[in-house]
Amino acid sequence: MSQIKLTQTVQKGGCAAKVAAAELRSILSQVKFPMAHKELLIDGSNMDDAAIYQVTSEIALVQTLDFFTPIVDDPFLFGQIAAANSLSDIYAMGGTPKTAMAILAFPLMSLDKEVIVEVLQGASDKVAEAKANFVGGHSIDDDTLKFGLSVTGFIHPGKIWSNDRACVGDHILLIKPIGTGTATAALKRQEVNENEIKDVIQSMAQLNNINDLLTNEDLQEIHAATDLTGFGLAGHSYQMAKASHVQIQFEFDELPVFSDSFTFLQKGFLTKAHRTNKEYTKNHMELASHIGEKELILFDPQTSGGLLLSVHPSRSANIIDKLKPRFPNAKKIGVVNSLGDKFLKFE
Amino acid sequence: MSQIKLTQTVQKGGCAAKVAAAELRSILSQVKFPMAHKELLIDGSNMDDAAIYQVTSEIALVQTLDFFTPIVDDPFLFGQIAAANSLSDIYAMGGTPKTAMAILAFPLMSLDKEVIVEVLQGASDKVAEAKANFVGGHSIDDDTLKFGLSVTGFIHPGKIWSNDRACVGDHILLIKPIGTGTATAALKRQEVNENEIKDVIQSMAQLNNINDLLTNEDLQEIHAATDLTGFGLAGHSYQMAKASHVQIQFEFDELPVFSDSFTFLQKGFLTKAHRTNKEYTKNHMELASHIGEKELILFDPQTSGGLLLSVHPSRSANIIDKLKPRFPNAKKIGVVNSLGDKFLKFE
Repeated sequence: MSQIKLTQTVQKGGCAAKVAAAELRSILSQVKFPMAHKELLIDGSNMDDAAIYQVTSEIALVQTLDFFTPIVDDPFLFGQIAAANSLSDIYAMGGTPKTAMAILAFPLMSLDKEVIVEVLQGASDKVAEAKANFVGGHSIDDDTLKFGLSVTGFIHPGKIWSNDRACVGDHILLIKPIGTGTATAALKRQEVNENEIKDVIQSMAQLNNINDLLTNEDLQEIHAATDLTGFGLAGHSYQMAKASHVQIQFEFDELPVFSDSFTFLQKGFLTKAHRTNKEYTKNHMELASHIGEKELILFDPQTSGGLLLSVHPSRSANIIDKLKPRFPNAKKIGVVNSLGDKFLKFE
Repeated sequence: MSQIKLTQTVQKGGCAAKVAAAELRSILSQVKFPMAHKELLIDGSNMDDAAIYQVTSEIALVQTLDFFTPIVDDPFLFGQIAAANSLSDIYAMGGTPKTAMAILAFPLMSLDKEVIVEVLQGASDKVAEAKANFVGGHSIDDDTLKFGLSVTGFIHPGKIWSNDRACVGDHILLIKPIGTGTATAALKRQEVNENEIKDVIQSMAQLNNINDLLTNEDLQEIHAATDLTGFGLAGHSYQMAKASHVQIQFEFDELPVFSDSFTFLQKGFLTKAHRTNKEYTKNHMELASHIGEKELILFDPQTSGGLLLSVHPSRSANIIDKLKPRFPNAKKIGVVNSLGDKFLKFE
């Protein structure tokens, strides 16, 4: 096995990063899309959420697609993380993954084939853990390694968790810590090695498969859900609050954060997304003064981040208890208020 | 609208080309994939065909994914061609496209956003023409523009055209001319402009939607089908012959070829695939001596090439007649024999 450090094969810092929400919206607003079919229950119109397409009265498809350049050095781990990240959007809608296709680009001449085998093995193992099928994909010769999955899951049309149904009084739960963006930036700059951020890496490789830990009664009390990815806690909770016409109020000091992430932020291990996520959300949030420079964690882009759940208050403690064995950091981090001046409030 | 020539933005000749079949097979043979679910009726195990996953006794999903760098200069046309190319795999299985997700990579800083709008508009128009829905996707910042679709279609589990059921005595039909690979290589080298290869471009942008031209009785007599893409006529017909345990015998002089493609080949407008496709198939074919250097057309990689159909001889003339209004170059190009020394024979 070659000792190549994958993060060092990504030439440019900002290369192959997610396109910022505002930029994407401006592009998409200029495209004339036709009317969608009535079977399209949820439209992935911002090009980053899962879409839902009804097949029968009992079955709808949940579909999502994601891919990126290496954020860790080990190819097997990169495959696992990329797969867990892609599968997460299916779980975030309440669905069950069924099929996955690979999106693979790599430098055919310069990259050891063993690296590709490891990436695919990591992804295949993770897809199998999700009880889904690897059903093909497409590979091209390219300057930089990129990998991800196009995933299709099944969901009952009556049991969809969209992000527009958070209710006033709900508790907001988060099942994984935040801070993967600054930790992987530190890794890329070789400030740390993978062993030193093992907690972050294990978390990114972990499936967000909460369904099988909960009863139908629990699942019914989850009113809205999303997973934390490139837009960070601020961006994704803003999207949920806006779609649900509510305010989400967070207890800043209650946020679960990876052990070294505040240190990495302080040392300046930032990505372009820290800036664009702040621009995207700053006018919609109220921040208590004690937070100060720690606010950066709110804009930290997550890879394969946890699910953010808006849950009926009577059920939230029970749900947290059931998630704990697999998601030990799962906790309540906020509540849903009626909409005030701002969509988000951090106390 | 910017006057950028998209083919000139692709830095390396071989960059972002499809990974050769042999290379891909060697990588995939080293990955330990788990057993597939029984619902997976057709496995996209070579990572380039559509997979089929059963949902109910009446409905199965057909899934495929493809993307590549610009092969034409005009962004709207590139979007149309990339979409038609991705949708083609659904038609090649006998399916009907339902949803499409975009795979988009582009240089955020240097590429005019209007170019991206045009690419997406071309794709959206083509997806709408196919009566499918654009349901989302993923975009990243990357050095080189790349675009394609992940497509899901529906198919009746009892009415799948796989490529392993060509029968001895069948007629082999092809619905579009061949020669797109050398023509787009000539375009990239600026030997010609898009106007001068209009026939090639129109053909690549055309959907392979033959279903709605044919009756159920016609469709039943199509025993096997595939679409011509990167592996060329030789590669894809070899795959069909091998899977069906038959020999396919072609009349070389009957092959429909774009008007200037032999000239482009003679002038040396080749791609890496011309070599790898020959390596992939040369031991499995018998070539009449009169063909000589013209054999290169057999290895020419196709983008959004036509469907290759293996049809009951009693029905082939009737099917050709019905395809003609939309596919004027559709014709019989060969017959299926019992397997002899070689899988392919060109006379």
